[in-house]
Amino acid sequence: MRGTAELIFTGDELLRGDTVNTNQAFLGGRLLELGLFTTHAVSVTDDRKAIAHALVGALLRSPDVIILSGGLGPTEDDLTREGVAEALKRPLDMRDDLLALIAERFRKLDIAMGMSNRKQALIPHGATVIPLVGTAPGFWLDEGGVFVAALPGVPRELEQMWTDTLRPTLVDRFGIEEAVPSVRRLRLHGIGESMLADVLRDIPWRGAGVEIGTQASLDGITLTFSAQPDDRSRARLAELEELVRDILGTKIYGSEDDTLSGIVGMLLRDRNMTIATAESCTGGLLAKRLTDHAGSSDYFVGGVVAYSNRLKGTLLGVSPEILHTHGAVSEQTAAAMALGARERLQADCVIATTGIAGPGGGTPDKPVGLVYVATAIGSDVQVRRFNLFRSREEIRERAAYAALDVFRRRLLDSLER
Amino acid sequence: MRGTAELIFTGDELLRGDTVNTNQAFLGGRLLELGLFTTHAVSVTDDRKAIAHALVGALLRSPDVIILSGGLGPTEDDLTREGVAEALKRPLDMRDDLLALIAERFRKLDIAMGMSNRKQALIPHGATVIPLVGTAPGFWLDEGGVFVAALPGVPRELEQMWTDTLRPTLVDRFGIEEAVPSVRRLRLHGIGESMLADVLRDIPWRGAGVEIGTQASLDGITLTFSAQPDDRSRARLAELEELVRDILGTKIYGSEDDTLSGIVGMLLRDRNMTIATAESCTGGLLAKRLTDHAGSSDYFVGGVVAYSNRLKGTLLGVSPEILHTHGAVSEQTAAAMALGARERLQADCVIATTGIAGPGGGTPDKPVGLVYVATAIGSDVQVRRFNLFRSREEIRERAAYAALDVFRRRLLDSLER
Repeated sequence: MRGTAELIFTGDELLRGDTVNTNQAFLGGRLLELGLFTTHAVSVTDDRKAIAHALVGALLRSPDVIILSGGLGPTEDDLTREGVAEALKRPLDMRDDLLALIAERFRKLDIAMGMSNRKQALIPHGATVIPLVGTAPGFWLDEGGVFVAALPGVPRELEQMWTDTLRPTLVDRFGIEEAVPSVRRLRLHGIGESMLADVLRDIPWRGAGVEIGTQASLDGITLTFSAQPDDRSRARLAELEELVRDILGTKIYGSEDDTLSGIVGMLLRDRNMTIATAESCTGGLLAKRLTDHAGSSDYFVGGVVAYSNRLKGTLLGVSPEILHTHGAVSEQTAAAMALGARERLQADCVIATTGIAGPGGGTPDKPVGLVYVATAIGSDVQVRRFNLFRSREEIRERAAYAALDVFRRRLLDSLER
Repeated sequence: MRGTAELIFTGDELLRGDTVNTNQAFLGGRLLELGLFTTHAVSVTDDRKAIAHALVGALLRSPDVIILSGGLGPTEDDLTREGVAEALKRPLDMRDDLLALIAERFRKLDIAMGMSNRKQALIPHGATVIPLVGTAPGFWLDEGGVFVAALPGVPRELEQMWTDTLRPTLVDRFGIEEAVPSVRRLRLHGIGESMLADVLRDIPWRGAGVEIGTQASLDGITLTFSAQPDDRSRARLAELEELVRDILGTKIYGSEDDTLSGIVGMLLRDRNMTIATAESCTGGLLAKRLTDHAGSSDYFVGGVVAYSNRLKGTLLGVSPEILHTHGAVSEQTAAAMALGARERLQADCVIATTGIAGPGGGTPDKPVGLVYVATAIGSDVQVRRFNLFRSREEIRERAAYAALDVFRRRLLDSLER
């Protein structure tokens, strides 16, 4: 059996467009890793009756797990405790141990604790308190065989409570075998969805207890294998992963939460090499991605955003002749930017971008979305041309990811023994 | 009466953590602008019965509007048409006019139309077809006084169908008066939530048909006024906005979808001034934000990401003495970066950042989150110190927004007549 889960979110901000519900994707993904497939996720207003109805409705479908999120704060709009108590017909107990912990937390923060915070120590009868992360306590309980938990809505607090308490509790409760994963995500770049579909069509995965899903986003495609939580299906998943890795090779840049910039950083660190960036159309985004990671100063020395033609000359030494003859968006300019940056910023490698992000500025010869990426490894420069699409934002994001991936593959090729 | 709406999303990807549901925030926000408050938003799996049950459940609560999204594609997982037909006990009609349109769309894209695409021309009996955006047709119908619409799940297609068809249809159906807005969002920076709460406490808004909400995010706070959809409440909203603007002044940087970088760009353009960036801890993010906007090359000339101390010297002319005496994260270095960039990049204004983004690298004197922002307007340099918090990502985002806001306010001050 594959288990099921339901999610209930409370908060007007989720319903009036002020907040995108990232907790739903987080919990859905983490539950799936435990073999628990989320079948319903509902967002309701900050209303006691609405919360109670949502919980009663979920219980009627008898999932294995129900997680509520939000509505555990101190304000009069925080009504999850009351909603759960009403739905389950359990009284709320004032937990003095919890009250003392909350008071202690306020003392440490040197903030006066209001009367309203006292109600945060109320917990449905029979529930287990989840150790505090912020000041909003979560809890979990068993309701006729269904595991019901309530977590705060603040993503940081929710995520930590999941990792520290809820996940181990669920692993224990359902006797989940963690040695062999039942979900595997591979990250791909440089392959289209239709080509990937062709590849997958030839792989004998159907009916073998493993489902496969693909999800395209700006940084490539994520290929998700999810196995039934039994040993045979999991072994099958591992075989399939090996098979797919053989076929797709370096088109797979990583797995699970890997990012292209993180992988590039790791490769540079392994090889004890440094990198610099020379950007036009990506406008700093490439440098930003490379510095997303703690410790990136070990390999990233710096970058130049040469947005104007003048700065392409003064900061990167691109000659007026090149700019005049070939234009700022050209193979020649991209190459000159990379070589100039290598010399002036003194790095082992450079990634340079120049292109037309739009929405204006395109011509029949050089349409919006045309982007040149030059990569230098030592003095060896190569230029790749891309035709990217959609909005300005998407073109810039795609250009930065494409640039990172071109560089990654060159690094793997050039340094293979 | 304020109207209500419910949203139903279909798609396993929303439930297994592969996709964050941005459509929910989009539709919730847009419906609110029409005075329609979303009370429930549910995501269900790609299952005909689940979709039908969700729709029946929503109809039982008698909202004014129900919008479904997703499941209108050609694959066997696309089951919204079938789910709606089952819930409403209406047959599916093959619409030849629609089939012709879909075929035409494929011809234009020069792609062979599969048999599976034929089912996209099936529409519940009595429904009105929403003009095609991609190849997935949406539709709407009246079910006993409830307006029920189905839109594709692709955000771009959903948003265009909303704007082009659904919104005007709803405005017409509910006789919504659009001249005076019933929702107003003000964007604030440089004020804390508690201080804002104090300000709002003194404003006599309660019980006057206007609700007020605040939402903190990395780029500041959004203050949302939503009025009951009657003339008196809307007039009251306008009065309140004026009152709040008087009190908060330049702490309000914009309204609705304004961004700090967009406002800074507008101010620079108005004054015919140029800007450059000199970044350390923000690593390119500041330049990226400034170039998010089409036409930013009119005012943004370029930037330097001087991550290493060496490049702070060679690219920006920060002297070894300053770096040695005060350190890379100091008021003096920030000021020297700004002045160096102004000279070398030849811009009217500069924003410079240096700080400790963490998680490592902090000391008791200079903890993680310490960020200096230097702004130069002409040769006049000012430095501000910030203590920012949380993750590396949040510190970098907050630093970039704080830098933009400091610069914005200086620009407003320095150039006021």
